[in-house]
Amino acid sequence: MASLQDITVSAAINLLSAFAFLVAFAILRLQPINDRVYFPKWYRKGIRSSPRRSGAFVTKFVNLDWRTYIKFLNWMPAALRMPEPELIDHAGLDSVVYIRIYLLGLKLFVPLAVLAFGVLVPVNWTGGTLEHIKNLTFSDIDKLSISNVSEGSKRFWAHITMSYVFTFWAFFVLYTEYRTVAAMRLRFLASESRRPDQFTVIVRNVPPDPDETVSEHVEHFFSVNHPDYYLTHQVVYNANTLAKLVDKKKSLQNWYTYYSNKYEKTLQRPNTKSGFCGLIGATVDALDYYSSEIEKLSEIEAAEREKVMNDPKAVVPAAFVSFKSRWGAAVCAQTQLCRNPTIWLTEWAPQPRDVYWDNLAIPYFELTVRRLLMAVGLFFLIFFFMIPITFVQSLANIEGIEKVFPFLKPLIEMETIKSVIQGFLPGIALKIFLILLPTILMAMSKIEGFTSLSSLDRRSAGKYHLFILVNVFLGSIITGTALQQLKTFLDQSPTEIPKTIGVSIPMKATFFITYVMVDGWAGIAAEILRLVPLIMFHLKNAFLVKTEQDRDQAMDPGCWDFATSEPRIQFYILLGLVYSAVTPVLLPFIIIFFAFSYVVSRHQVINVYDQNYESGASFWPDVHRRLIISIIISQLLLIGLLSTKQIKQSTIALVPLPVLTFWFHRYCKGRFESAFVRFPLQEAMIKDTLERATEPNLNLKAYIQDAYIHPVFKGTDLERPQSVFEDENNPLVPTKRNSKQNSEAGSTTG
Amino acid sequence: MASLQDITVSAAINLLSAFAFLVAFAILRLQPINDRVYFPKWYRKGIRSSPRRSGAFVTKFVNLDWRTYIKFLNWMPAALRMPEPELIDHAGLDSVVYIRIYLLGLKLFVPLAVLAFGVLVPVNWTGGTLEHIKNLTFSDIDKLSISNVSEGSKRFWAHITMSYVFTFWAFFVLYTEYRTVAAMRLRFLASESRRPDQFTVIVRNVPPDPDETVSEHVEHFFSVNHPDYYLTHQVVYNANTLAKLVDKKKSLQNWYTYYSNKYEKTLQRPNTKSGFCGLIGATVDALDYYSSEIEKLSEIEAAEREKVMNDPKAVVPAAFVSFKSRWGAAVCAQTQLCRNPTIWLTEWAPQPRDVYWDNLAIPYFELTVRRLLMAVGLFFLIFFFMIPITFVQSLANIEGIEKVFPFLKPLIEMETIKSVIQGFLPGIALKIFLILLPTILMAMSKIEGFTSLSSLDRRSAGKYHLFILVNVFLGSIITGTALQQLKTFLDQSPTEIPKTIGVSIPMKATFFITYVMVDGWAGIAAEILRLVPLIMFHLKNAFLVKTEQDRDQAMDPGCWDFATSEPRIQFYILLGLVYSAVTPVLLPFIIIFFAFSYVVSRHQVINVYDQNYESGASFWPDVHRRLIISIIISQLLLIGLLSTKQIKQSTIALVPLPVLTFWFHRYCKGRFESAFVRFPLQEAMIKDTLERATEPNLNLKAYIQDAYIHPVFKGTDLERPQSVFEDENNPLVPTKRNSKQNSEAGSTTG
Repeated sequence: MASLQDITVSAAINLLSAFAFLVAFAILRLQPINDRVYFPKWYRKGIRSSPRRSGAFVTKFVNLDWRTYIKFLNWMPAALRMPEPELIDHAGLDSVVYIRIYLLGLKLFVPLAVLAFGVLVPVNWTGGTLEHIKNLTFSDIDKLSISNVSEGSKRFWAHITMSYVFTFWAFFVLYTEYRTVAAMRLRFLASESRRPDQFTVIVRNVPPDPDETVSEHVEHFFSVNHPDYYLTHQVVYNANTLAKLVDKKKSLQNWYTYYSNKYEKTLQRPNTKSGFCGLIGATVDALDYYSSEIEKLSEIEAAEREKVMNDPKAVVPAAFVSFKSRWGAAVCAQTQLCRNPTIWLTEWAPQPRDVYWDNLAIPYFELTVRRLLMAVGLFFLIFFFMIPITFVQSLANIEGIEKVFPFLKPLIEMETIKSVIQGFLPGIALKIFLILLPTILMAMSKIEGFTSLSSLDRRSAGKYHLFILVNVFLGSIITGTALQQLKTFLDQSPTEIPKTIGVSIPMKATFFITYVMVDGWAGIAAEILRLVPLIMFHLKNAFLVKTEQDRDQAMDPGCWDFATSEPRIQFYILLGLVYSAVTPVLLPFIIIFFAFSYVVSRHQVINVYDQNYESGASFWPDVHRRLIISIIISQLLLIGLLSTKQIKQSTIALVPLPVLTFWFHRYCKGRFESAFVRFPLQEAMIKDTLERATEPNLNLKAYIQDAYIHPVFKGTDLERPQSVFEDENNPLVPTKRNSKQNSEAGSTTG
Repeated sequence: MASLQDITVSAAINLLSAFAFLVAFAILRLQPINDRVYFPKWYRKGIRSSPRRSGAFVTKFVNLDWRTYIKFLNWMPAALRMPEPELIDHAGLDSVVYIRIYLLGLKLFVPLAVLAFGVLVPVNWTGGTLEHIKNLTFSDIDKLSISNVSEGSKRFWAHITMSYVFTFWAFFVLYTEYRTVAAMRLRFLASESRRPDQFTVIVRNVPPDPDETVSEHVEHFFSVNHPDYYLTHQVVYNANTLAKLVDKKKSLQNWYTYYSNKYEKTLQRPNTKSGFCGLIGATVDALDYYSSEIEKLSEIEAAEREKVMNDPKAVVPAAFVSFKSRWGAAVCAQTQLCRNPTIWLTEWAPQPRDVYWDNLAIPYFELTVRRLLMAVGLFFLIFFFMIPITFVQSLANIEGIEKVFPFLKPLIEMETIKSVIQGFLPGIALKIFLILLPTILMAMSKIEGFTSLSSLDRRSAGKYHLFILVNVFLGSIITGTALQQLKTFLDQSPTEIPKTIGVSIPMKATFFITYVMVDGWAGIAAEILRLVPLIMFHLKNAFLVKTEQDRDQAMDPGCWDFATSEPRIQFYILLGLVYSAVTPVLLPFIIIFFAFSYVVSRHQVINVYDQNYESGASFWPDVHRRLIISIIISQLLLIGLLSTKQIKQSTIALVPLPVLTFWFHRYCKGRFESAFVRFPLQEAMIKDTLERATEPNLNLKAYIQDAYIHPVFKGTDLERPQSVFEDENNPLVPTKRNSKQNSEAGSTTG
């Protein structure tokens, strides 16, 4: 077992390497050539269009101003300086609330650490059990942990008391945070300017009607049942084929632009090959070839467009229904329309850019079957994923490779390469699986039939959280695969399970400390360095970028991947909670992780990531629920651990804790959750009244008309439909979006 | 263990005794003197006002017409003859749907019994294991059960296959039943005439306002947020003291009427005593005494009434808000009003007679605390109720009684009495507890803060169901108290628990067969005989009844006690499901129970019981959920049983069943539940439109004005507020309510 010295050394090394990452980051980010990698958000917002310094040719790529290097940690205060309201305007509420999870971790664990070091560490240290047992190797960390208190000792009452204090502190922090986030969300929704989704409801499972088209049916139904408020509606076309054609045409147009730029520069007609990617086939004049190809495709596209618009079968039984007022939409979204509750299903429409178009047409029965299958699938994925991987691993040995690729034999047989492969192969299947896992989970969520990107993200996060809980947390404590664990748990009594896990908890402290440093600290340092995007950008820039639009795409920073990163934070919170009463030494490491993550993610949100939807922090109830799960797990494990320590009253003294926690969850749910799923009528009425007073002549119908048209019918690029304009109406930070580029694209493709 | 002969004899005895009950019932019901006991519903409806036959003095009390005795089982076809729509009009949807649960039991178990006797009984009978084991006493019933199949035999696949067939049959029956009940409910709601609760929403947790009264605050809030639909509102007064005064005054008035009747008959001024119940104190002239008492009380009452009406503190922060249309009310009931979801809570108003007035003013936080406490309380009640009972039992022995009541000593010491007491005492505490249990559970539900009698009944039924499940079902299988069971379960692994229970299942078959006969058959026969109400009525009639109103109260048949009887049906369904694949011999007994119950309860609903609210079968989702729980329990127990039979694949083959059942539950819930909790806008709009067309000049405000006034402010009797008129608007059965009596009461008390 690692001693305190070992851990200190390891911590020093990890801190140093993280520091090295930071220095590297500080240097790289100052180079103008990397500007688009480290500040893409500002480019996207149209505030920056080229690196700040311009002048000599060299300074375009390398920063020669030595003074900037001295203040290389300047980005940290800069990241912290932007006040929260401005940050909401700059990056959206989702990102801001996401960052608050790190802050929540700090709020939770700093007082916990102070208390634990003030009370529990002395109690443990003077326990003196380990010293009395001969022939036992123990480390200083163990002396600081609960293991050092002798069985049946009265000292455990300190731990029991502190676990109550910790729980109530967690309640306080969680409650205030939930309240704050709910208030932020309501303020955000109230301060928002007019948006199409405020007036719109998505209605699904429109029943077929023999005499009417879907569009007529929707119009008649809503005219009858919401006579005073119904405004207009938009049917949903099944435009998947068309979307592919539009994509293809855009690529061709891109090539055309590239060659015409080239022609302008060199004044030579460029050539290309007519085959795959311009690499094979007959050589042709590039400009002629692409213009004729574009023309051909345009005809096909127009035909397809015609077909989709006129074929009644291309209309899916769903529609976006808009109302004359927010009040009307709020009423419709929250009530049941038809006596058959599986048809005419209404819910709030997501933002236009948040819609996941493929899932709008799934009937109710199919939906429930899909959810059943995915629930069963998730169970097998979590508990049985090791089986196929073990199988693949058994195939992936050197003999196997030599059999399939005999020509590689001489290469593989070389001693050094052989040893590398032998060391590398066993883990490769697992690693590939883990890299693919978020994609698999997202695919499962898509099959489940959710209609917005934000809900897909939330569902995937839930699945990933379960996976981490079972396979990382439990898997590290009770060494063995999830399948073996499942077997153990099925064969043990419900009271035995927390004991089995609880007893192993103190022994795994050093492992998790190392885990926090290697995965947590290094992960965050790698996050800010953005090594992969940096390399990818320069590679793309050198070889692939043909036009300005291409450069934009190469620069695309993506968005925070909520589905994978939130469950990871939850895992660290779980670690902190579990160890707070057992081995408090772990807490400082967790605190450093949260503090560091907070600064880094604030920087990234300000400078890098660009959310592709804004859900108004609607993920918070999920975050809260998972925090509650972590608290309950930590309490159950403490009960398990203490019940092996020969103090009978401990279990009885601790049992109220999970009951209280569950009740706290119910209370918070009732108190705040509806702020995240419903839209109060009072709020809607206030905004409606205000709008009627300030803009009495507003033509709402024209405003909403095209908001929910499938992106392919707009002629703009697929990823960023028009309505994104509304969301970036930004009064604090000057973000005049570079709309020229967009309209250009529109005019050429339209 | 009981043999097949024993069971047959026992069945014959029980059938005979049930038959004797029926004969007794047939004779008693024909006596005119008992008419008010066996046909109170018709009296209450005002169709009967005196026994049918009138003539000689003797025939007023005894039926001498011998012909009527011959057709003594005539009531059975008569009970079955009334068609369902008429029955709905006669007794309300609640009762009709309640009776359908028995019918559901028949639909479920008749095909199951046919299949089980066709397939499983031959398979078991020829299994021949028990015959090969020497020195084992076994009965014929065991030969018919799964115990007779040898371990590891392929014959178990018959049981596995049949359990799939049973499950899918249960799905089919449950699904069609849920669909039917939902349709019945919607048809019922649609066919209903105008009722105040269709237009009204109850709003709770009205926040305090420093400048406005509750009434003004409600009016302003709804005028702003529902400007087009708000009609009027009624505040809720805390009128508990006043209600007590009104009750007391009514009793005095009753006495006054009694004595004035007496005076009219005898022409002698009657005397009474001024003390407790007219038994002690100074002798006074009765008429003078009561008229002066009434006058005194009237003054106090008027003062209290004044105080309640004018004291702002007597108004609780809740109100009944009425809207101009059903559409407006439906919208308000289903949406969230305020951004703080714990204030301005709206839900559908219950029927005026269904309101539980005491619980209207509980704030949100207190409500959640109460629910927590009651959940913990229920847990202790279920698992620890034996502790105080054992304690009381240890006190309640002969020596204890002699100590407390020494004067009883000579009596107790008599040999026969002593043995009776010794045999009787140990069980008495438990019996008293079981008799009190429904009242205790109802009190707990009241503490939980539900606002309508129907929801109180539903909650209590849920609690009682849990109690029966743990203490009757599990308690009978694993002999021992619930506390011992809890200990066993906590110490066993999750896979071990179904095994432990499952293995005991076949052995308990004869016990449960006896239970079905003794508790089920005899219980139903006792139900129809109504021995207790019969005796009570005659006792009251002889000694207490003073006026016509008193006779009415003595006749009061009460209503079906949903909270205790529904969980009992569920218990029989659970027994049938559990034994269908294990010991099918139990099924005929269950079927007889359901068939008999169906006829009896139909008769009782037609002739006896009078519901005191109509919830439109809103209890069905609960019934369905409990049925699903029973199915899952039966599947888990079968898995447990088969996993001890040395066939490995059995568990894997059966595990999909509970998963499928759970999914089926989710599917049905999504498909039908909202029909029971929400009111579709389409429906509301149709009724509104119809009403506007047929009655354009309706003065809705006047109609609703007084519907939701606390009964004491109406001057009518407490139990049956005025609006009951609306519900008995009965086109099929001629039910001209005897409204004279009511208005009389009104004029004297008002």
